[in-house]
Amino acid sequence: MPFRFAARMNNARRSFVREILKVTDRPDVISFAGGLPNPQMIPVEAIAAASEKVLRREGREALQYRTTEGYPPLREWIAAQYVARGVHVTSEQVLITTGSQQGLDLLGKVLIDEGDGVVVEDPTYLAAIQSFGLYGARFLPVPADGDGPDLAKLADALSASPKLLYCMPEFQNPTGISYSGDRRRRVGEMVRDSSAVLVEDDPYGQLRFRGEPRASLAVHNPGRTVVLGSFSKTIAPGLRLGWVCGPAEVMEKLVMAKQAADLHTDHLAQRLAYQFLADNDFERHLQMIRGTYKAHCDAMLEAIGRHVPAGVHTTRPDGGMFLWMTLPAGISAMDLFPLAVERGVAFVPGGPFHASGGGENTLRLNFTNAEPERIATGIERLGVAIAELMRG
Amino acid sequence: MPFRFAARMNNARRSFVREILKVTDRPDVISFAGGLPNPQMIPVEAIAAASEKVLRREGREALQYRTTEGYPPLREWIAAQYVARGVHVTSEQVLITTGSQQGLDLLGKVLIDEGDGVVVEDPTYLAAIQSFGLYGARFLPVPADGDGPDLAKLADALSASPKLLYCMPEFQNPTGISYSGDRRRRVGEMVRDSSAVLVEDDPYGQLRFRGEPRASLAVHNPGRTVVLGSFSKTIAPGLRLGWVCGPAEVMEKLVMAKQAADLHTDHLAQRLAYQFLADNDFERHLQMIRGTYKAHCDAMLEAIGRHVPAGVHTTRPDGGMFLWMTLPAGISAMDLFPLAVERGVAFVPGGPFHASGGGENTLRLNFTNAEPERIATGIERLGVAIAELMRG
Repeated sequence: MPFRFAARMNNARRSFVREILKVTDRPDVISFAGGLPNPQMIPVEAIAAASEKVLRREGREALQYRTTEGYPPLREWIAAQYVARGVHVTSEQVLITTGSQQGLDLLGKVLIDEGDGVVVEDPTYLAAIQSFGLYGARFLPVPADGDGPDLAKLADALSASPKLLYCMPEFQNPTGISYSGDRRRRVGEMVRDSSAVLVEDDPYGQLRFRGEPRASLAVHNPGRTVVLGSFSKTIAPGLRLGWVCGPAEVMEKLVMAKQAADLHTDHLAQRLAYQFLADNDFERHLQMIRGTYKAHCDAMLEAIGRHVPAGVHTTRPDGGMFLWMTLPAGISAMDLFPLAVERGVAFVPGGPFHASGGGENTLRLNFTNAEPERIATGIERLGVAIAELMRG
Repeated sequence: MPFRFAARMNNARRSFVREILKVTDRPDVISFAGGLPNPQMIPVEAIAAASEKVLRREGREALQYRTTEGYPPLREWIAAQYVARGVHVTSEQVLITTGSQQGLDLLGKVLIDEGDGVVVEDPTYLAAIQSFGLYGARFLPVPADGDGPDLAKLADALSASPKLLYCMPEFQNPTGISYSGDRRRRVGEMVRDSSAVLVEDDPYGQLRFRGEPRASLAVHNPGRTVVLGSFSKTIAPGLRLGWVCGPAEVMEKLVMAKQAADLHTDHLAQRLAYQFLADNDFERHLQMIRGTYKAHCDAMLEAIGRHVPAGVHTTRPDGGMFLWMTLPAGISAMDLFPLAVERGVAFVPGGPFHASGGGENTLRLNFTNAEPERIATGIERLGVAIAELMRG
């Protein structure tokens, strides 16, 4: 007898990026495909010291069942970071999640009924499409320029009474684009005047290596913004530590959904992260990451200038982990992929990041994982493959 | 403007047990309410040694993003345990989850459409009601005697074409009851001949302190059984490590749902658990837990015999963490609760464990968390409160 799965699984697919990562595991392939932090930026020794301390001093507490909401001192640390940035929240509004990916899943569960409108940037974060898609989201993609979303198209999308607007205003995954200060204010105000919840996903905000930090959209829409954050890019992704912070009424539902989803996030990991933050100069650690990623990004941009044919456009991010390449119209990144892998370089074709299709001539490049020399070599190989494809 | 939540949240409640735990946090209250392993059974020093080793030797691998399925050596260890018990699975069929609670959530997501039938024991595990309920499960509760479910009522429930049967055949939470060998075979065969998936939740199977181990239901229904397991009761609940293991076709969907839910389970925790298993005599560790829990269970049963009025029935578990008390008809455990807390003892009223109501005169007692002397004192207090209530 065949298995009878839920209808929501009919359109579910394995993450395209994760499938690509399997193909590109060959050591001779220089991969710009993943979204991995540079392994040298993971503070292994400081985490080992934190672990030794936590397990010796409070091991039984760290390893027992704990509250769903999360470790109170860590929640307080997170709330204080927001307050320092002008977003007035308390630690009671912070829920620790199993990576910020879980925040997306819980928001989908709490907000989205089959067929509900969800406004997203076009392109947007692939795993948000997956998470919200499983709850039956009807995506309303809004294209962006270098300063953020097209406001006229955003107004159209908001007029369809969507449940939420999902956005990543700092160093977006996949494009690396950030909203300008003015665009932040306008977007915050427009959503404030709508019935939607504004979901601001900010996993990369602390990785700004050029320019001045900008305000969270929550500043412009304090009552209806939910912010998502992560320690995956600043401490260690393997610990799976993220958080959601928003209005009390939304948090109450998210806590219920979290209880049913996994009771609570690994508590030892929460105490390790807190101990790491308490015992180390976090700002200095971030400066080291920023300096490294700037060098990586610059190496990639310079190599692109040298090796990639004219007619190819590339974003110039001020932080984060990705840049975005647009090939001339009619040149397909899917066609480019096998040519590139053959030459020993990999990337992610941009099509799947578009919730309603399109973007066949786009691709995402990660600049944090490979070292600058390998970046230069990889981009040279990519340039050859692009030139070959453009020649037809 | 009010927030517009998804319809599935209309009936969601915070876990009743977790709310009770907040009330019973007072140090003067002896609590039999939670489901916590005894803190002395958590191998803190061995986990600290494993952590030191893992972080020194392979810290960068342990802290980076990893595959959704989980750490391969840990998956192999789990598969080997099943094979040794006559359940023939491979490590590819094992998915590591964020506690076995996440296994329930993922199964709900993958299998249950709004209104789908889900057969459960009556009473059943509270958090399964929560997880499946959020996906719109229509519960079909089947009562059990001391040997397992009522087979005639199970046949009725299966005739309604349910998507799954959820059961806990060893030391059930909340009752402590185990299925007999014959009942296992019959249940396995009946589900095999239906269109339902059999979900066998087994978090306590390794905590048998009396009698002989019995076969997994998967032995009787190999093609359509999904088994859930956990390290929460044998290593440490705070690490949030569980697993799901089942037919390849089901696992493929579960992996997709897991990707969207949290990408993967804390990888450091997975390596810690594996290192703990590799470096320690796990069977001896389990024997210590079993010996301790037997002493606790016996202390509780003895105190019940001495202090609880006639007319109150109690199960006599052969393992696990809970026993179940049935008060005389018409005596309400909800009415008992405030009287008991006033005398300094707490439990969980049994009503909420019944998916379709009933069981007002039942309650669950945990015997693992408090020490035997406190168990005796607590049961004496409970006996006084029950006698008072029975006198009217």
